Amino acid sequence: MIRIPFNEIKQEFKRILLKLSFPENKAECCAGIFADNSLDGVYSHGLNRFPAFVEYVKKGIIDVKAEPELVQRNGLVEIWDGHSGPGMYNATLCMKHAIELAKTNGIGCVALFRNNHWMRGGTYGWQAANSGCIGICFTNAGAGMAPWGGTQPRLGNNPLVIAVPGKDGPVVLDMALSQYSYGKMQEYQMVNKRLPFPGGYDEAGRLTTNPEVIRQTNRALPIGLWKGSGLALLLDMVLTAITGGKSTAKITAEKIEASVTQCFLCLYQENFHPELIEEIIAYTKTSKPTEPGDEITYPGERTMKRRAENLRDGIPVNEEIWKEVKRM
Amino acid sequence: MIRIPFNEIKQEFKRILLKLSFPENKAECCAGIFADNSLDGVYSHGLNRFPAFVEYVKKGIIDVKAEPELVQRNGLVEIWDGHSGPGMYNATLCMKHAIELAKTNGIGCVALFRNNHWMRGGTYGWQAANSGCIGICFTNAGAGMAPWGGTQPRLGNNPLVIAVPGKDGPVVLDMALSQYSYGKMQEYQMVNKRLPFPGGYDEAGRLTTNPEVIRQTNRALPIGLWKGSGLALLLDMVLTAITGGKSTAKITAEKIEASVTQCFLCLYQENFHPELIEEIIAYTKTSKPTEPGDEITYPGERTMKRRAENLRDGIPVNEEIWKEVKRM
Repeated sequence: MIRIPFNEIKQEFKRILLKLSFPENKAECCAGIFADNSLDGVYSHGLNRFPAFVEYVKKGIIDVKAEPELVQRNGLVEIWDGHSGPGMYNATLCMKHAIELAKTNGIGCVALFRNNHWMRGGTYGWQAANSGCIGICFTNAGAGMAPWGGTQPRLGNNPLVIAVPGKDGPVVLDMALSQYSYGKMQEYQMVNKRLPFPGGYDEAGRLTTNPEVIRQTNRALPIGLWKGSGLALLLDMVLTAITGGKSTAKITAEKIEASVTQCFLCLYQENFHPELIEEIIAYTKTSKPTEPGDEITYPGERTMKRRAENLRDGIPVNEEIWKEVKRM
Repeated sequence: MIRIPFNEIKQEFKRILLKLSFPENKAECCAGIFADNSLDGVYSHGLNRFPAFVEYVKKGIIDVKAEPELVQRNGLVEIWDGHSGPGMYNATLCMKHAIELAKTNGIGCVALFRNNHWMRGGTYGWQAANSGCIGICFTNAGAGMAPWGGTQPRLGNNPLVIAVPGKDGPVVLDMALSQYSYGKMQEYQMVNKRLPFPGGYDEAGRLTTNPEVIRQTNRALPIGLWKGSGLALLLDMVLTAITGGKSTAKITAEKIEASVTQCFLCLYQENFHPELIEEIIAYTKTSKPTEPGDEITYPGERTMKRRAENLRDGIPVNEEIWKEVKRM
């Protein structure tokens, strides 16, 4: 494992995207997000995912020239067509519009269909909270979980993000609705490790901690068993109801996870009571740890620590993948 | 177990509430909601909860005369003070306002602090969806879950509700963020049954299926382990950030679960693509069942069946509690 400075990684990504005919602004945005994801320790959606992203561009699944388009306005709800452009660029733009709506009206919602994968959902949560907004966003995905009581995957693991501005930085929850995201399972598999808790089912329908097996069966375990199953279903319904875009059913039928649907919801007011958010954090941390000496952390807290470390020491990278990217 | 017709139960509730000096409109609303909850099979928040509700009224924790008050408006976000009135009445009113905001503006949000327990969160999801809206609502609560990595309860199990209008009736997800709600655990305990899956921790910190033990330790298991823990924390933060109302920390400090905070969010547009919602349901149901002959159901589907059964055959009641209520 070697460490590479943030700027070097970002510039490398940008060089490649420009070579792939990305316009300057899109190359800057997407390279920045991939580099930020690795910087924050979300390696599965940073450097490690970059080669697959490039493949999608080369295959024409991601249209680098496409611009998202506002196709319908229902009061303060805007519906945008992503026209299969780069997912993170479109998502960033839509969250920006949701923030603007919220700053003017207290609340705003932008829903985006025909978009590519937004990579790490947390990106847009940080974006909202860094602008002083509460941000709620979610996406659908191809089927990777069986509905509760069923044996075949029919639900996306549809990540849900909730971000709240805080005194010492945002609190950002970014979670797939499977116990482990597929990206996280890939990380475990890359280092030949088992999952700490059962994360899905094997071919025989038994729970397993083997990430490779779960990635083959496509049967991740929903958080809370029937509850995560229900939540994944409802998020897909909300996205589809608002936009008329592709549901998990249709995304799955196309065999390739493109043209997903996302929603960006923001709230804004002058005073979000940061002192009360501090109080909640302080109270939560008073719970006696399971392991003496451990600390209870809130979502986003470790991310900020890792960001500072990786900025200082460089981002740890998988050498194989880094070499592959350098050759692109 | 005996069965009592819906109207008889509702009229009995209403008689008692009027005797407790509820104004006619509030008695009608609250009696209707308690009766509906039993009708829909959510017995823990119907008849079985009614005596505790009456106790709260008698102790003055619920102020039957209080009217909720709009105290702040941030664009399309309204903040209401519940003034410790009957929780379900205030919640119904606030969801009504959120629906009105959404019908005019595509989206609307009403947050309500200093309110009493809303009983069954699903009530307000059904209300939204029956009005043609997507409804999202959540509440905080006293501490009943330990944060992930901790051993002492610091998080509410903060129920989350998402409702979407559908062709054959609404799809309504109503879930506590613990694997089993405390109401559900009480139901298992009343019939001396174990939980089907581990639902929390015993005194020694071991996972258990004994509902009585979990109700004593107050350490329910969050759905998805660290994920439900994070989600419960974030919902409390969102509620507190918007309203400045009492967080789980403050509710817990008061020893009695009063003065909680709730949020009601609605989306409305003319066409929520009911045919696509049908398609999602149909696709989900094609997953081969774990047990041959079983059916995959969506959230709200069994509720509608039970509602029809209980309307036809009468609502099954616990005789002890029913006698107790008749004597009130």
